[in-house]
Amino acid sequence: MVTESSRDGHLVRIAVDAMGGDYAPEEIVKGAILAAQKGGIEILLVGPKAVIEAELKKHLATEVPILCVEANEVIKEGEHPALALRRKPDASVAVAAKLVSSGEASAMVSIGSTGAVMVSTLQILGTFEGIERPVVAGPILGFAPDTILVDWGANVDCKPLQLLDFAVLGSVFAQKFLNVANPTVALLSTGSEEGKGDNLVREAYLLLQDSGLNFIGNVEGNDIPLGRANVIVCDGFVGNVLVKFCESLGATIAHWLKDSLGGHLPAAKIETLVARLVSSTNPAQVYGGGLLLGVNKAVVVGHGRSRATEVAKAIHIAKFAVETGFVEMLKSEHDRVWAKKKQPQSI
Amino acid sequence: MVTESSRDGHLVRIAVDAMGGDYAPEEIVKGAILAAQKGGIEILLVGPKAVIEAELKKHLATEVPILCVEANEVIKEGEHPALALRRKPDASVAVAAKLVSSGEASAMVSIGSTGAVMVSTLQILGTFEGIERPVVAGPILGFAPDTILVDWGANVDCKPLQLLDFAVLGSVFAQKFLNVANPTVALLSTGSEEGKGDNLVREAYLLLQDSGLNFIGNVEGNDIPLGRANVIVCDGFVGNVLVKFCESLGATIAHWLKDSLGGHLPAAKIETLVARLVSSTNPAQVYGGGLLLGVNKAVVVGHGRSRATEVAKAIHIAKFAVETGFVEMLKSEHDRVWAKKKQPQSI
Repeated sequence: MVTESSRDGHLVRIAVDAMGGDYAPEEIVKGAILAAQKGGIEILLVGPKAVIEAELKKHLATEVPILCVEANEVIKEGEHPALALRRKPDASVAVAAKLVSSGEASAMVSIGSTGAVMVSTLQILGTFEGIERPVVAGPILGFAPDTILVDWGANVDCKPLQLLDFAVLGSVFAQKFLNVANPTVALLSTGSEEGKGDNLVREAYLLLQDSGLNFIGNVEGNDIPLGRANVIVCDGFVGNVLVKFCESLGATIAHWLKDSLGGHLPAAKIETLVARLVSSTNPAQVYGGGLLLGVNKAVVVGHGRSRATEVAKAIHIAKFAVETGFVEMLKSEHDRVWAKKKQPQSI
Repeated sequence: MVTESSRDGHLVRIAVDAMGGDYAPEEIVKGAILAAQKGGIEILLVGPKAVIEAELKKHLATEVPILCVEANEVIKEGEHPALALRRKPDASVAVAAKLVSSGEASAMVSIGSTGAVMVSTLQILGTFEGIERPVVAGPILGFAPDTILVDWGANVDCKPLQLLDFAVLGSVFAQKFLNVANPTVALLSTGSEEGKGDNLVREAYLLLQDSGLNFIGNVEGNDIPLGRANVIVCDGFVGNVLVKFCESLGATIAHWLKDSLGGHLPAAKIETLVARLVSSTNPAQVYGGGLLLGVNKAVVVGHGRSRATEVAKAIHIAKFAVETGFVEMLKSEHDRVWAKKKQPQSI
């Protein structure tokens, strides 16, 4: 599929789904060019070659290390991911995953649909033992940049062991991406004392106490903006609701602020304030990432509304993950905890 | 306990726990005076008579319809509610509940601790069939005043039937307190389509479809600030996390706003903006209520930090509940749905 001559040992090769996202392929191609120009990577742009090449030509991007890989089909936002992938095995997102699976690329980036990325990741790349679906973690607030929430919503009806997994994955994430040596880990609950919360939290509490992680107990909803722990663990149902509520509340307050300040401050000052508020309360923008945790390879899924700058950022997150051996470190921490779980004295 | 001569058929008689709350008894007594001065009620202030009478004298409040009822013990914030109530059967909160139970008062108000109010309510006044713990509902955002969230956090590990109960109680609440004739009811979930969410939501979906309520399906976290439904139903774990996150995020943004605007606007203008933001994002202030739903009598539990104005507001909410026959309406709606549940064709 990709000729051997294009390989370069010094470059991280990343497969990018050119057709995913609201502004594909234009903004994806532009983002790939931006990312490639920063150096250190070679990009395999996956999609209909004719379309991608036409986009590349628009930007006179012939000298950057970008190759096209043919994929004739596209999965659109709103399609049922599993069904669509069965009908369209040559969809760009699936071809990108196969490039990673075969070793032709070290990581993949797709701007969506999230469901299609999840399913192709699961089917083609696989997850660690015990990880049912890829886990998404990241800081959700610019006001608490050293606090990540995990899981953002892929995994619901979690078992206590899954929360332990989230804690392990989140802890490695915080070490690598937040640069925190020994991240504090907490369970999101309805009260800070042990015993508070629902059955899931109470059982996970015991597992976390015994995990070797820097577990500090329960935190409550109010502790998230205060950054009371580096890693805050919750079922993906709660994470999903919180992430969406956070973005929407921030945007609502920004709207109110704009109205309230109109006429009292210069328009440019208001715009700056509002933009800062929106970006500080939009989890997707705060993080800018979307690295799937618990997957056997580095996979980044971006927000559907990403523009070129965000696409380039997502590509560089994938590069960083490859260069730092992030997936290997996740896997080894995960295996350490799983080995312990399998001993008879554990739950 | 209370002499017959003090009764007046035209006044709603409300038992107020004079010793609950961070600023008890001073602010509670002041709040009771404010509430009584507005008319239509007679207040039984429950606590150590000497202390309460001294407070009343400070305000020269001898002409207002306030009576003292002796209760020598107090349950403090932080005490284990059930144990404390067993040790102190004459605690002010328990005596207030007994006044309602015996019919000497029509409603009770306590500013906390919430746990002690919950337990005395459960033990002394009781709940409707199938309601395990009192349910708290109310609008959480000033930006979406016609949207209530239920449950705020008393009930975790809910069964689908409990979510149906929340929907029924919330719907009556919205009719009476938001003045909405046919409130829209939605389930909080991770996606808007039927089938999205966790097992609890999926099962509750079927019950709500068949409930006779104005059920509009699932909403997501982002729909809360947008006010997409009048009644948004969730397990109390999620409700508790959301309510606390909302208050904390609002306060965090308010803090940032104060810093950002300092020097750019007159201090008074900044103060007004910040105060408005804080009060619009603090669920306890937005609602100002704390009426416990599913309890056989009208019980209002206020926020621990309530000052006199909030105390007076809580007392008037209790009065409104009594005058409008709110508890009876809740009970009859609850019974209608329970009767249906008991039929063999129902789940």
